[in-house]
Amino acid sequence: MAVSSSFSTCMLYGRPFGSELMNSNEDFMCNYSSLHDKVSFCSRSFSVSSGMRCSRLVQNSRLRDGIQCRALEIENKHLTSLVEKFELDDVIEAQQFDRDILSAIFEVAREMEKIEKNSPGSRILQGFLMATLFYEPSTRTRLSFESAMKRLGGEVLTTENAKEFSSAAKGETLEDTIRTVEGYSDIIVMRHFESGAARRAAAIAGIPIINAGDGPGQHPTQALLDVYTIEREIGKLDGITVGLVGDLANGRTVRSLAYLLAKYRDLKIYFVSPDVVKMKEDIKDYLTSKGVEWEESADLMEVASKCDVVYQTRIQRERFGERVDLYEEARGKYIVDMNVLNVMQKHAVVMHPLPRLDEISVDVDSDPRAAYFRQAKNGLYIRMALLKLLLVGW
Amino acid sequence: MAVSSSFSTCMLYGRPFGSELMNSNEDFMCNYSSLHDKVSFCSRSFSVSSGMRCSRLVQNSRLRDGIQCRALEIENKHLTSLVEKFELDDVIEAQQFDRDILSAIFEVAREMEKIEKNSPGSRILQGFLMATLFYEPSTRTRLSFESAMKRLGGEVLTTENAKEFSSAAKGETLEDTIRTVEGYSDIIVMRHFESGAARRAAAIAGIPIINAGDGPGQHPTQALLDVYTIEREIGKLDGITVGLVGDLANGRTVRSLAYLLAKYRDLKIYFVSPDVVKMKEDIKDYLTSKGVEWEESADLMEVASKCDVVYQTRIQRERFGERVDLYEEARGKYIVDMNVLNVMQKHAVVMHPLPRLDEISVDVDSDPRAAYFRQAKNGLYIRMALLKLLLVGW
Amino acid sequence: MAVSSSFSTCMLYGRPFGSELMNSNEDFMCNYSSLHDKVSFCSRSFSVSSGMRCSRLVQNSRLRDGIQCRALEIENKHLTSLVEKFELDDVIEAQQFDRDILSAIFEVAREMEKIEKNSPGSRILQGFLMATLFYEPSTRTRLSFESAMKRLGGEVLTTENAKEFSSAAKGETLEDTIRTVEGYSDIIVMRHFESGAARRAAAIAGIPIINAGDGPGQHPTQALLDVYTIEREIGKLDGITVGLVGDLANGRTVRSLAYLLAKYRDLKIYFVSPDVVKMKEDIKDYLTSKGVEWEESADLMEVASKCDVVYQTRIQRERFGERVDLYEEARGKYIVDMNVLNVMQKHAVVMHPLPRLDEISVDVDSDPRAAYFRQAKNGLYIRMALLKLLLVGW
Repeated sequence: MAVSSSFSTCMLYGRPFGSELMNSNEDFMCNYSSLHDKVSFCSRSFSVSSGMRCSRLVQNSRLRDGIQCRALEIENKHLTSLVEKFELDDVIEAQQFDRDILSAIFEVAREMEKIEKNSPGSRILQGFLMATLFYEPSTRTRLSFESAMKRLGGEVLTTENAKEFSSAAKGETLEDTIRTVEGYSDIIVMRHFESGAARRAAAIAGIPIINAGDGPGQHPTQALLDVYTIEREIGKLDGITVGLVGDLANGRTVRSLAYLLAKYRDLKIYFVSPDVVKMKEDIKDYLTSKGVEWEESADLMEVASKCDVVYQTRIQRERFGERVDLYEEARGKYIVDMNVLNVMQKHAVVMHPLPRLDEISVDVDSDPRAAYFRQAKNGLYIRMALLKLLLVGW
Repeated sequence: MAVSSSFSTCMLYGRPFGSELMNSNEDFMCNYSSLHDKVSFCSRSFSVSSGMRCSRLVQNSRLRDGIQCRALEIENKHLTSLVEKFELDDVIEAQQFDRDILSAIFEVAREMEKIEKNSPGSRILQGFLMATLFYEPSTRTRLSFESAMKRLGGEVLTTENAKEFSSAAKGETLEDTIRTVEGYSDIIVMRHFESGAARRAAAIAGIPIINAGDGPGQHPTQALLDVYTIEREIGKLDGITVGLVGDLANGRTVRSLAYLLAKYRDLKIYFVSPDVVKMKEDIKDYLTSKGVEWEESADLMEVASKCDVVYQTRIQRERFGERVDLYEEARGKYIVDMNVLNVMQKHAVVMHPLPRLDEISVDVDSDPRAAYFRQAKNGLYIRMALLKLLLVGW
Repeated sequence: MAVSSSFSTCMLYGRPFGSELMNSNEDFMCNYSSLHDKVSFCSRSFSVSSGMRCSRLVQNSRLRDGIQCRALEIENKHLTSLVEKFELDDVIEAQQFDRDILSAIFEVAREMEKIEKNSPGSRILQGFLMATLFYEPSTRTRLSFESAMKRLGGEVLTTENAKEFSSAAKGETLEDTIRTVEGYSDIIVMRHFESGAARRAAAIAGIPIINAGDGPGQHPTQALLDVYTIEREIGKLDGITVGLVGDLANGRTVRSLAYLLAKYRDLKIYFVSPDVVKMKEDIKDYLTSKGVEWEESADLMEVASKCDVVYQTRIQRERFGERVDLYEEARGKYIVDMNVLNVMQKHAVVMHPLPRLDEISVDVDSDPRAAYFRQAKNGLYIRMALLKLLLVGW
């Protein structure tokens, strides 16, 4: 979400801050000065985190709930902490989240798990409209976001073939498409085939953008749901041992996960992968720089016996081009089956971003330590939390 | 819908039976023993109808309506009949329905016809989410289900190209896809290109599955709406005369319809079809075994004059491969036109599963006996009824 | 929307007028005669405008709001004017609108701009279901309509590939498809590749049809939003000077716009286009016959300096076939850039139907006179207004 740079665009893409306040709250005038202080505070907060703004927080959390300005003054301290938390205007990449934000998002996600059908909580996004602008199909991710929006009472506009979007096909820029679609919706969830596309969209948009995967770039909500699942399953994030298995070279997921895990203390990470798809140096260097202990291993059984989390990934055939032989060799090398499970600890879990082929054998599914379908479901709660935070604030 | 086989999966896919009761009903503890009797009863009921379970009935119909356990005891007899009725956990094939269930479903469908916009009835599925998982496009069927869900206040997640579902394209099994999608929705309506796919989905799913057509297999909701239409138009199902016309060899519809009609008494069925697409022996044998009188005829005019229902079907070009000559010959042989209509009885009707090409001439449309568009509309009511029954019970 | 021609179809596609009144209003009987007068009046009104009917107005505006027949009598005069206004049963082509209707629609569109989230206004189409039946993709237009419907609390059934609609692919006529889909929805928004398709649909449908573009034919809602934008930006429609720039031969948009502008007084229109895509004679003749002054010019700078509105359009590559040379020549000829903007008047605006390639340079976007994204947003309000008018009346 970009901050409107002129009054005229401001009128276009959002209600000007002041006018809505005046319409909806007669107490506004007498309290203007005190409110103004907060807004100034917001601006300072903004200046340190580019691409984000906080005025929406004040607008939404206050006006939607009918809290008056006087209450604001009294709850000054509370607001301050809210504003400090509110570093979330778009979701573009895993790196934008720090431990505190992650922890706060997870807290909201846990609240989301408890929302019952037809309870007030199931209507908190009523009246809001999300556009899913998918330039490449990803039905799983799309359905997860759309379910999240609808579970909170929101509505959805869907485009699964945005690439064939007549406009894009005719040569329209992503920026123009975003400026059009933001006129129809309150938030855009976007999947694109080009790395950096989500950032470009966020730079132009006057409404929040969520990156649902941009090519080889980022897929931040997957990284969030992975960390959330580890916390839910293991009970902690500091001091754990994680085995990343499979295609570590191309897997966007494991790379993002490594970035996020580096924010926690006393971690040990094992990399277990066929030689052709080993974890790249940049991530290893990054982990080292953050003081995370890591080790490469060719012995899945030994690693599995030590880990809290065995994170298996699919060897992606599409990355091997015509070298089917290399693919076949890599693919069969590390399978999580009952033998692996039998050496794992009682409290440990197997995770997988899905879809899986045969890198986890089907008989593992019925073991309580098979966490991958719970992990998929956690994606729903994380996305509910993000939609709530971006649209109505903390 | 599969019954959860372990506590851990049970936690995953549904709320455990007891905990919800305890949360929502303070009277539970004191009445536990009496309730337990019912649950045992359910289990017995379950054991005789594999692939179905009844606990949801008790959960939904009782807890949603806030009926207390004491009421349960008093209404013991009523519950018993409810439970007996409740043989419906998934809709997989026409054969699963007996006369009583059909009659009960039709009663609900007639209630559905009466639901007015914005009446309480139009909100009975509020908060529920249906996923339409279509592995081959069938816009008509999809829109019919989605309309049904929305007419009852429910919400919809749509996938029209599930075959290109990135996951399926990458080799994910149907079972894994179902286990993911069931995390996002409350019921799955599924169209697949493989016979038996719906049954496989139901075996794994923790939520209800409706088969919206699985390849050359079944399309049970079409069969239901056909029988419902006959009852609505003719006023009865016993003692009627039905002419099945057109492609009787390949038409999934007429085959399922024949199975369902065999449940009624004193029927006479005529088969009128080009030689290359005659009704197959299995259905004829089945009808004979059920005591249904049937006869093949080459004289559409004579048959039409005797029938209560002339059920015309399209000769499916795609079944003839390169034998365009055979197709063309078969196609023109039995056309329902004004000449046919003129020999039909006043109370009789022409039905067709649609789409039609020219096997019913357009001038027939304006005759009140042309029932095919009403038949299409009845599909809406039947699907509303099924969604209601599967999600909130009788 | 066709008027039902027989009682039996009437029962099928809509509630008969009288019965609903009787059910919902006990005062009906005693006031029958006075109401009957109005209905007769409606019939007269109907006879002069074929393809339209007015009974829905009376049904909707009265019964939905619970206004009783007695009130009707007292508000006789008001009703008369309402009925006179109500010439809107389908939206098929720009020519169907006269100045008064346009002005009335624009008034409703301005009301739509003011609707706040979760206000009563945002629920006026609650319970209504719109089907978007798109035979060719047009994501922008589809999202705009779907957003409009949802902003008013209505629901949507979506088909983006209606051409591959299994039924259409199998040879079903448009008429049969419409008769099926109208059973599932309350209004159909339709995009088709054949000119005249929307009119054919409206002739058969018992519910309102909105033409969202039919091939080289019409795209009336685009024309309406263009005129609405001019009025919003310039403040008036009489006495303005408009420059139509770019592909004037093939642009459906500029042709429809010219038709609508001809309804206003003291206009001056400039045509600025490469020779290969000049405005065709039929439009020029039409403008002349309506007394609209027009002039062709090759000097964009001079025209821009005189205009209130510079309406730029995209040179459509697809119209040039293999003559890429002609396309390239035409394409670069008239670009709206800062040089053009610098000679434009302060109050003037640049419009464009979007998508744009480089016929407006990106640096123009930040000038307040760049009205094209506001124009796109106005499409939302116009479509909200039309949906409201067609479904619940004035």
